[in-house]
Amino acid sequence: MPKTRQQNQNSLYLSPVITIVIISILSPLSLAAQPSKFRRAPRFVGKLPHLTEPPQRQQRQQQQQYRYETRYFEQRLDHFSFADLPTFSQRYLINTDHWVGPNRLGPIFLYCGNEGDIEWFAVNSGFVWDIAPRFGAMLVFPEHRYYGESMPYGSREVAYQNATTLSYLTAEQALADFAVFITNLKQNLSAEASPVVLFGGSYGGMLAAWMRLKYPHIAIGALASSAPILQFEDIVPPETFYNIRESASCFNTIKESWGELVSVGQKENGLLELTKTFHLCRELNSTEDLADWLESAYSYLAMVDYPYPSDFMMPLPGYPIREVCKKIDNAPDATSILERIFEGVSVYYNYTGNVDCFQLDDDPHGLDGWNWQACTEMVMPMSSSRDKSMFPAYDYNYSSFKEECWNDFNVIPRPRWITTEFGGHDIKSVLKLFGSNIIFSNGLLDPWSGGSVLQNLSETIVALVTEEESARTGWWVNFDFYSSNCCNDLGAHHLDLRPSTNEDPDWLKKQRETEIKLIEGWIDNYYRGKKATFNM
Amino acid sequence: MPKTRQQNQNSLYLSPVITIVIISILSPLSLAAQPSKFRRAPRFVGKLPHLTEPPQRQQRQQQQQYRYETRYFEQRLDHFSFADLPTFSQRYLINTDHWVGPNRLGPIFLYCGNEGDIEWFAVNSGFVWDIAPRFGAMLVFPEHRYYGESMPYGSREVAYQNATTLSYLTAEQALADFAVFITNLKQNLSAEASPVVLFGGSYGGMLAAWMRLKYPHIAIGALASSAPILQFEDIVPPETFYNIRESASCFNTIKESWGELVSVGQKENGLLELTKTFHLCRELNSTEDLADWLESAYSYLAMVDYPYPSDFMMPLPGYPIREVCKKIDNAPDATSILERIFEGVSVYYNYTGNVDCFQLDDDPHGLDGWNWQACTEMVMPMSSSRDKSMFPAYDYNYSSFKEECWNDFNVIPRPRWITTEFGGHDIKSVLKLFGSNIIFSNGLLDPWSGGSVLQNLSETIVALVTEEESARTGWWVNFDFYSSNCCNDLGAHHLDLRPSTNEDPDWLKKQRETEIKLIEGWIDNYYRGKKATFNM
Repeated sequence: MPKTRQQNQNSLYLSPVITIVIISILSPLSLAAQPSKFRRAPRFVGKLPHLTEPPQRQQRQQQQQYRYETRYFEQRLDHFSFADLPTFSQRYLINTDHWVGPNRLGPIFLYCGNEGDIEWFAVNSGFVWDIAPRFGAMLVFPEHRYYGESMPYGSREVAYQNATTLSYLTAEQALADFAVFITNLKQNLSAEASPVVLFGGSYGGMLAAWMRLKYPHIAIGALASSAPILQFEDIVPPETFYNIRESASCFNTIKESWGELVSVGQKENGLLELTKTFHLCRELNSTEDLADWLESAYSYLAMVDYPYPSDFMMPLPGYPIREVCKKIDNAPDATSILERIFEGVSVYYNYTGNVDCFQLDDDPHGLDGWNWQACTEMVMPMSSSRDKSMFPAYDYNYSSFKEECWNDFNVIPRPRWITTEFGGHDIKSVLKLFGSNIIFSNGLLDPWSGGSVLQNLSETIVALVTEEESARTGWWVNFDFYSSNCCNDLGAHHLDLRPSTNEDPDWLKKQRETEIKLIEGWIDNYYRGKKATFNM
Repeated sequence: MPKTRQQNQNSLYLSPVITIVIISILSPLSLAAQPSKFRRAPRFVGKLPHLTEPPQRQQRQQQQQYRYETRYFEQRLDHFSFADLPTFSQRYLINTDHWVGPNRLGPIFLYCGNEGDIEWFAVNSGFVWDIAPRFGAMLVFPEHRYYGESMPYGSREVAYQNATTLSYLTAEQALADFAVFITNLKQNLSAEASPVVLFGGSYGGMLAAWMRLKYPHIAIGALASSAPILQFEDIVPPETFYNIRESASCFNTIKESWGELVSVGQKENGLLELTKTFHLCRELNSTEDLADWLESAYSYLAMVDYPYPSDFMMPLPGYPIREVCKKIDNAPDATSILERIFEGVSVYYNYTGNVDCFQLDDDPHGLDGWNWQACTEMVMPMSSSRDKSMFPAYDYNYSSFKEECWNDFNVIPRPRWITTEFGGHDIKSVLKLFGSNIIFSNGLLDPWSGGSVLQNLSETIVALVTEEESARTGWWVNFDFYSSNCCNDLGAHHLDLRPSTNEDPDWLKKQRETEIKLIEGWIDNYYRGKKATFNM
């Protein structure tokens, strides 16, 4: 029986050691714009696998390396009203192996669960596990509501039924969940005086940073890794994400392919032709579905573009983008653009060569948690320009976005809410004046870095940016660099939360050391303050 | 036709010049504890008149002195969910007479509407009207949801129907209302760069202070007058409010009267006897109702204890508490305790002598906005000790409080939510570290001052405390001072928001000048920051 894409994706579960990257890949932050002619708003992907039953290897891995207890905490569905709604069980994972306890004010490291199964994040946030012994810290991983097992209304089916049941899936409710959870946990452990440090990546990093602004009394600091808190309204240009600076042959071929795709698709029997070219298992319904599939490949590839062979999303060679570009560039002269593209993405979708035909995602509009969040609060305008992006040109259009959200979810987005709630154009000065103890870590090749905080804002709001090549913004430069054999090790996709490995480049080791020192500083400072109060 | 208490209360409308005090009187902050034997939880009064049709004199006053335009702004019912709820019209009053406009970055003074009709607060917050010309400031008075005309579901009847319709009456929703409202207003006026300064008294002062913590990007500073943000959980002792330091004959008689009341009430025909002693229009149903009525008088008296005759709540002599004590103390020797009490409270309820019989409040448990808030979020534990309070001894008991709230509203209080949301025992250090530009103004004779911030926390978190007699806490000292002819002008009940008058004592004039200078400092600082950014 031939392997399909679906099956291949399952291999994802088999190598948890480095799967933190997957989180980025599958996270909202790996969105892909649609060609404007398809009249669809940019899609915030984010379909994380639901690890209700983690595969064997992952379970074994967890047991060996990451031992935790799974517990549940009863949460209100709406913290900000007294509506008579059913409560729900928020799952959290806890490890107290290294905790020095409440009497010695042992720190509590809280990972801000984001849009996925918390076990997934826990076993892929090796950094916090790595450093827990050094700090004598307890680890807790509260799950984000509406993800994993933390389902309101008792089941995912009911929770995701419609806009009414989904309506409490918001960032503010999630922040309040964390606040209520940790306050309660500390009280139960008589650990009210223990300092809490927050960790989070991508959307979880945004939550960690916002938590410092909204609940400064709950935690003493936050490591917000790749947290694009500026990616709202017009704080940063909407092209920040998709544009690149240079071009190369591979890039140009990809760029040309979108038009070719549409052109072929419009011909008589064009969809059948595309079906054959791309070895699809079922006949294509629209070029759009194929474009989605291709864009996903490019997005994911840029995230997993490691210098060594890996096997998370898919089994892949080292420098997979270089391999993709080689296939595209080095095909025989007579090869058509779309055939070249097929050869290229086959590196991603079929590196093992075992796939006979490919299944496209049948339900790109399925009720998905992040899609809901993107259609409600997380309205991040995204364009890709005709000249400077290898993706289909797309002008962000709020009206069509709104329409799409209405069609998908029966909900009207609130594009200005996040900036009203957390600060907009002034958020940097707000952070400077009212925030403290936040690390914003970013890799400049991460396309989300353009929407994040890249400069130190104060002594305690620190930006750690890997590779100070400030001109480079947009991770799609990888496609150029590798095709022109120019560079390596240039970028990082918020990898600092990953466990340390022997292959870690020096800058990553240094970055983690800096993070540890900063966190030590927060905790020391907190203890000094406690001692001063105590001696008074 | 004899005047009843009900009718007398209407005279309240007739002297708006100094009615800011009334707000305090009728506000939640004028609660009165119940004798524990009555088994009722402390009651947060707060029944403000609903000024749907302001009386003639007030209207005239408004037109003459406080001209404003009334407008409406469409608000979400739940800012923190996407539940498909009907929006509601938030009323706001606006005056731009003195505003120097957006180009000169004219300031916007925003009064944080609290638990009542916004017209009421607007015409009684003379201070902001007085200082607007000096600052070239616009004035806006957004109304608090569920009060005045700002009724969800189109009418008070529906909004107050049950726990479901009331469930969105929370402080966090009100803060979000203000944030969304002002963001929108500034955008509409192209005044995004205009600085906003917040004002508020009592609960409104708490909102103003919390707004600085939760929405520091929305306003540059706040004058929080008599804002007992520490009156939650066990941050301050529950007796802070009701206890006094010394005693005097008048105080002792009042103290003794509660037992006497119960004792007489339990006799055969005791309720009838009490009905006669207190000249009630209808036969008394329970001693509890009478105790409520008496406690109200003492609470209100302490608030309106001005050194000159006044006429807000009731027509009253100057130093009315002294007059009450005189009546109680100087009655003929044979006069019983309860007869003395009746003579005393008659100064309050019947100073004109026109009342033939008194109507007690028939519906103390009616669905009232503040009562709802007190039964949900604003859970302020209040006890009065047997020795140190002139009020009936009462030990705060959360269980019975909870039960009472369930009976009244079908709602379960969340006693730890406010401290989780805004900070609890650590709120002072949170304010110090993360807050700025807040004035906490208090009079030490205000019983709420014990729950407020009375020390400077930083250079910009400033406490203005009138009469630095730090030993005096509790406004009931008035009852001692006046009965023993000891003191005058000692206290202030957050009067700084009132309009200036010729009778203002020097300390009040000085306090207001200090406030003005601090606000000028915030605004100058803001302008300097803007200029620096502009010149960069």
